Amino acid sequence: MIIMSDEKKTSLESIGEFKLIDELTKDFKTHHSSTIYGVGDDAAVIQRDENTVSLVATDALLEGIHFNLMYTPLMHLGYKAVMVNLSDIYAMNGTAEQITVTIAASSRFPKEALEELYKGIKKACDIYEVDLIGGDTTSSVSGLMISVTAIGTAKKEDVVYRNTAKENELIVVTGDLGAAYMGLQILEREKSVYKANPNIQPDLDGYDYLLERQLKPEARKDVVKFLKELDVKPTSMIDVSDGLASELFHLCKQSNVGAQIYDEKLPIDTAVSTTAIDFEISPTTCVLNGGEDYELLFSIKQEDFDKIKGNPHMTVIGHFTAKDSGLYLIDKQGAAIELKAQGWNHFNEGKNA
Amino acid sequence: MIIMSDEKKTSLESIGEFKLIDELTKDFKTHHSSTIYGVGDDAAVIQRDENTVSLVATDALLEGIHFNLMYTPLMHLGYKAVMVNLSDIYAMNGTAEQITVTIAASSRFPKEALEELYKGIKKACDIYEVDLIGGDTTSSVSGLMISVTAIGTAKKEDVVYRNTAKENELIVVTGDLGAAYMGLQILEREKSVYKANPNIQPDLDGYDYLLERQLKPEARKDVVKFLKELDVKPTSMIDVSDGLASELFHLCKQSNVGAQIYDEKLPIDTAVSTTAIDFEISPTTCVLNGGEDYELLFSIKQEDFDKIKGNPHMTVIGHFTAKDSGLYLIDKQGAAIELKAQGWNHFNEGKNA
Repeated sequence: MIIMSDEKKTSLESIGEFKLIDELTKDFKTHHSSTIYGVGDDAAVIQRDENTVSLVATDALLEGIHFNLMYTPLMHLGYKAVMVNLSDIYAMNGTAEQITVTIAASSRFPKEALEELYKGIKKACDIYEVDLIGGDTTSSVSGLMISVTAIGTAKKEDVVYRNTAKENELIVVTGDLGAAYMGLQILEREKSVYKANPNIQPDLDGYDYLLERQLKPEARKDVVKFLKELDVKPTSMIDVSDGLASELFHLCKQSNVGAQIYDEKLPIDTAVSTTAIDFEISPTTCVLNGGEDYELLFSIKQEDFDKIKGNPHMTVIGHFTAKDSGLYLIDKQGAAIELKAQGWNHFNEGKNA
Repeated sequence: MIIMSDEKKTSLESIGEFKLIDELTKDFKTHHSSTIYGVGDDAAVIQRDENTVSLVATDALLEGIHFNLMYTPLMHLGYKAVMVNLSDIYAMNGTAEQITVTIAASSRFPKEALEELYKGIKKACDIYEVDLIGGDTTSSVSGLMISVTAIGTAKKEDVVYRNTAKENELIVVTGDLGAAYMGLQILEREKSVYKANPNIQPDLDGYDYLLERQLKPEARKDVVKFLKELDVKPTSMIDVSDGLASELFHLCKQSNVGAQIYDEKLPIDTAVSTTAIDFEISPTTCVLNGGEDYELLFSIKQEDFDKIKGNPHMTVIGHFTAKDSGLYLIDKQGAAIELKAQGWNHFNEGKNA
């Protein structure tokens, strides 16, 4: 029988997801000229015809790691599983066209549960105009897993990568940040209350925006359209799935630049600010280390500033600097605080467990 | 908190995978003209340029359902996870070019375990010339899951579907069948022996071929090439992942035809025949209901028979008939036995649990 040698063992917790992927995939060679860009961006890029590319992104959500069915409606879960993948296509400045869906479910899930899940998937497909083209449905020993692959398209010249930001370019983020994280805190609090005493009804009133951002996020298809209308091509782009600090770190590392962002510029909804205070968390921490906002973080040339100025969907939060200047948040008192890559390490702590 | 209503619950076991997928996906609409063929074949077909299509297939392997790590080396598992997906691309008569790999692993797996898995994935990529272009690596609450999406390409006119077989066409299968299933029986037998008494060493001698077919199957990229060289375009095709009976049933149902196959024509390796007798199973049953052979099952026009006659990789096992003639195996005594769709129902019994 097969037994792993005990000699050398490195726990996954000690590595972190991005380093692990780097190490596991570093020796792979490319065999096809159609493979334009592989591992390392929001989506892979494949040559389609002379002027067009296909974009491919894949992400899985696992029960107990990414979601807790105690407070996640299955319909919302199906919707969200599609969103997190479409978001990766939009982060390449592309149009999402197709998805495949793989579901593994244990015998505790009846057919009606999967129907709820597929209702959410269908709603996402209808609203975002993507086609479900295939997948796999299988049983699992325990728990629910949903893995989606999204396929998109873009003109080759329109594709925006993570590694093409330059010094002095402006850093822009869409929408507002931190709300999905605060939504999760509320759900977790009410779960604890319920577990302690199942007779107490959950108190979710007044938290609609935060809960919706956590349970039913929207990918920013609209932003890709706005950017085209404004005639702005971002110089780099990534989606905000793991918290602003982690995403900025990716752009800086892959583009070989540093960055300065300004605390006072961060777009934070008042619901986040007031709830964060109740929870004794800094709203800035929610933004930097929260995650699951599925907004877009991108950079533009300084000369494009006038085109986006005053746009309600976009906020300039800072600019890229020289690589050796590092990655800093300038706080409201003007002090520079160095940011570390935090992001969510799934091997350390569940996002949503 | 969210509780599923107890009123109506249909267990997944009572439905079966294919019917379930049909029901879950029946209301989905197509939004893009680039979506040529969605759910229902080995791979989805997407328009690439005027004359070319992309092919997309996805399949997941779960611990306890599709594999047992007590006897499955992780390197072989990685290799097999790629093979089962490439096989779907070849079953469309296409060329596989790229894969994405999503892995979920619990904390019981050290980094070295994932390295073994990726060694197998890399070996498959190198031998079959496919590029790893992305994926997702996450933790799981328990167990190991590997989900692969394969992307291929084909000339639009070369794509072979399941629903285009016609009456009187010849049914052809590649290689031999039933060996992967017998390999599994041997591994399961030795597992039981080991569990009863861990001091008894497993007796796997002489079963090399059967074990290799189970643990390290090969997808039939070569057959796609042979068919081109022979100037034969199959009239329908599917890969043999769930046993011959189930695959034939798919071709018949989707093409609106019946079929007759002949027991004496079934390609069965002598290792299968002799081992099946030891296990008191009919070799024919292994072929019909076994599965995981990853051979190709296809049909050709009668006039193409001379082109494949005597080819060591291909065996004519019968022909398609009128739909109302049904699906029959003619046994060695000339008796007609009606075949039912069996295949593996993952919700009833693990393939490999």
